[in-house]
Amino acid sequence: MAKVSPRTLSGFMELPPKEQMKMEAMMEILRRSYSLYGFTPLDTPVIESAEVLLAKGGGETEKQIYRFSKGESDLALRFDLTVPLAKYVAGHYSELSFPFRRYQIGKVYRGERAQRGRFREFYQADIDVIGDGKLDIINEAEIPAIIYSTFTRLGLKNFKIKVNNRKLLNGFYAMNGMSEKAGEIMRTVDKLDKIGEKKVKQLLVDEVKMYPDKAENVLDFMAITGSNAEVIARLEDYRGMDAQFDQGLDELITVTKYLADFGVPEENFALDLTIARGLDYYTGTVYETEMTRHPEIGSVCSGGRYDNLAEYYTDKQLPGVGISIGLTRLFYVLNEQGLLSDEIITAPCDALVLPMTEELGPAVAAATALRQGGVRTQLYGEKRKFKAKMSYADKLGAPFVVLLGEDEIREGLLSVKDMASGEQKKLSAEAAAAWIRAEVARRAASAVIKDE
Amino acid sequence: MAKVSPRTLSGFMELPPKEQMKMEAMMEILRRSYSLYGFTPLDTPVIESAEVLLAKGGGETEKQIYRFSKGESDLALRFDLTVPLAKYVAGHYSELSFPFRRYQIGKVYRGERAQRGRFREFYQADIDVIGDGKLDIINEAEIPAIIYSTFTRLGLKNFKIKVNNRKLLNGFYAMNGMSEKAGEIMRTVDKLDKIGEKKVKQLLVDEVKMYPDKAENVLDFMAITGSNAEVIARLEDYRGMDAQFDQGLDELITVTKYLADFGVPEENFALDLTIARGLDYYTGTVYETEMTRHPEIGSVCSGGRYDNLAEYYTDKQLPGVGISIGLTRLFYVLNEQGLLSDEIITAPCDALVLPMTEELGPAVAAATALRQGGVRTQLYGEKRKFKAKMSYADKLGAPFVVLLGEDEIREGLLSVKDMASGEQKKLSAEAAAAWIRAEVARRAASAVIKDE
Repeated sequence: MAKVSPRTLSGFMELPPKEQMKMEAMMEILRRSYSLYGFTPLDTPVIESAEVLLAKGGGETEKQIYRFSKGESDLALRFDLTVPLAKYVAGHYSELSFPFRRYQIGKVYRGERAQRGRFREFYQADIDVIGDGKLDIINEAEIPAIIYSTFTRLGLKNFKIKVNNRKLLNGFYAMNGMSEKAGEIMRTVDKLDKIGEKKVKQLLVDEVKMYPDKAENVLDFMAITGSNAEVIARLEDYRGMDAQFDQGLDELITVTKYLADFGVPEENFALDLTIARGLDYYTGTVYETEMTRHPEIGSVCSGGRYDNLAEYYTDKQLPGVGISIGLTRLFYVLNEQGLLSDEIITAPCDALVLPMTEELGPAVAAATALRQGGVRTQLYGEKRKFKAKMSYADKLGAPFVVLLGEDEIREGLLSVKDMASGEQKKLSAEAAAAWIRAEVARRAASAVIKDE
Repeated sequence: MAKVSPRTLSGFMELPPKEQMKMEAMMEILRRSYSLYGFTPLDTPVIESAEVLLAKGGGETEKQIYRFSKGESDLALRFDLTVPLAKYVAGHYSELSFPFRRYQIGKVYRGERAQRGRFREFYQADIDVIGDGKLDIINEAEIPAIIYSTFTRLGLKNFKIKVNNRKLLNGFYAMNGMSEKAGEIMRTVDKLDKIGEKKVKQLLVDEVKMYPDKAENVLDFMAITGSNAEVIARLEDYRGMDAQFDQGLDELITVTKYLADFGVPEENFALDLTIARGLDYYTGTVYETEMTRHPEIGSVCSGGRYDNLAEYYTDKQLPGVGISIGLTRLFYVLNEQGLLSDEIITAPCDALVLPMTEELGPAVAAATALRQGGVRTQLYGEKRKFKAKMSYADKLGAPFVVLLGEDEIREGLLSVKDMASGEQKKLSAEAAAAWIRAEVARRAASAVIKDE
């Protein structure tokens, strides 16, 4: 029979088992961390009516979207988790309690040009808090505090959550009479990291058509750095010139204060006036997160405050604040950089039971006892030579092997071998489970990411 | 602005938060249960090349498939998790250890005619064990044993895993010289439950064109019931007439014996000769699972032994055995029947912290302490009246409310209220966390399904 090549589409991640286990470990930490902060998990369809999904319409996204017909229906695959959230909140409005806090970890689809490290199907892991009419500023501090806590649980150490405020930026442009050019200026200033201050100034003058002194003002403003207290002190110099600026500054001060209350160390967050995010959507605090030793990766977690989540679906004013981790890309990069731990257990089982007798009844009983003792146990039922069985255990990376021969069955004991140390003991099923659980717990305590 | 209706497509499940929490609880039990038996989680793309996905081609499935173009590519959404598994095993063959045990809980897509309780996007929760060249019979007993254990953990009590063997069936038809008509006969016999023995016999004679005595033979065979020992004793009467039948009977005896070794009570599994499953694919033991008080639902979990998982992709002989839970449908039915527990916590948090002061610092500290104590905690930061805050807590279904006013802050204590009993205590954060954890653990110990 002619065979079809079992290929996976380019831009679609499909991991070997051991890497998948690391991905699962990351996802499990995200679920637990988000749950610990009182977010409810949501699960919305991958397919939506194109009319619903593209209610906002336009832009780069629409070109990338997977859109198709089925029967009479014009359908599309979700390209983020925010539009489905907006639809959900508008549609389930009366069933929800506000503030409504949800997390969603799900696959989204964008038909980007295929290239290494770019994915067409990828996980986003989002949290959002949605208010009904209004939403307290403390949420704008809690969201990055959750990211700090989540990243720390994952094992990330060298990261910085960069915080800015859109009112502050808009106010600054207004006080300089540059409101109309604000978008263009921000896009240009966004290139500071890449092309440097001098070239940005040239672009501002030549292409954005700014007066050189105004361009200088912008660059001076963007160059404000230092400790958070220092940045705020420098920003105070601008106070009193524009009401929106002043409000943004007050918000930034409040968020900075609460971030400290939430226990986020200053080394992991920084006021950064160059962060702007999308132009229309965000209206208050905005975030980007940089892996400080790998700035080339770009932001691994971004978001901010918005005033109107679901305006395309409802007249209700639904302000919110949210943040999104690009999980597939983050995993890909960490894996490529060798930053994923080899300490966590990637075998599908903690113990592999190897029967040494024809009749498998006692091995079944042993496996059942270990499972009742909370040990992830695989029963190896194939009739093969001892060497082949041990080589299977090795390839699987099973932390423990449990041998069950005539002697063990007679004595009612299990021969348990720690595959890492080589240590072997004859134990009751209960004692074996306790030994294995302790070692598994030790290894499970190590972080999935090694970011030393 | 004209609004787009925030509708969800028909046939796509989108749950309100409390129901979603119940679904999550079920999925978490499936993940843990499958892991406990040494299965590795897989995650394959939702989109595959149509050529790959439809390598087998034909049949009802192809009409239902979501198939579309993107650029030059002919794409399709997966319609089950078995074809992607076959592709995965063929494609990653050299990286895998055999037997390869994987579970996958994922969404699949079938454009079925929309009707109540029928889904176009639905979760399947599959386990499979794949051998390289051969696979021991014990796996055919372990798979239903895992389903027994999983269903029991979910809280299901009134279910029966029906077991049959395709070799036994094929052998029976061969010994009656009916091999060619076997498919047609099995499809007719499948209607026994619905139309009864008399009408089935008539169909066998009139439409399948069987001699009446042969039809009688078939119905006599299908009517063999009783305890598993009784069924086996009756089947022994047929031994010696067909080699395939004898092999099937031996397998059935072995599987029955091991099922008992695995601790599956006889009330939860039954040899049932009317179970046949798909015609071409299965070659040994086959399973269906009936909720005994709701037979109208049909099988909630089915599968069996197959000899050639990936023949469309590889020359390797890859026998396996697997089973699939139609999770979305199962959830839907349980929910409709009122069989989902109201005892498990469906609030996004265990404790809702309600600050009674303007300054939120102490409330942030309290929430942080509770979270460090393992309590899922939501900080309510909105400036609203006490009554509105309590009504929010009620609507959310938060098990505990933590009040923090001037007094509590001065004393360094939290006022903690158990919302179910009304009991209120002033406690340190640590003592509060311990109290809340204990109550949460009590409620978490109750099963998600109430099947009394």
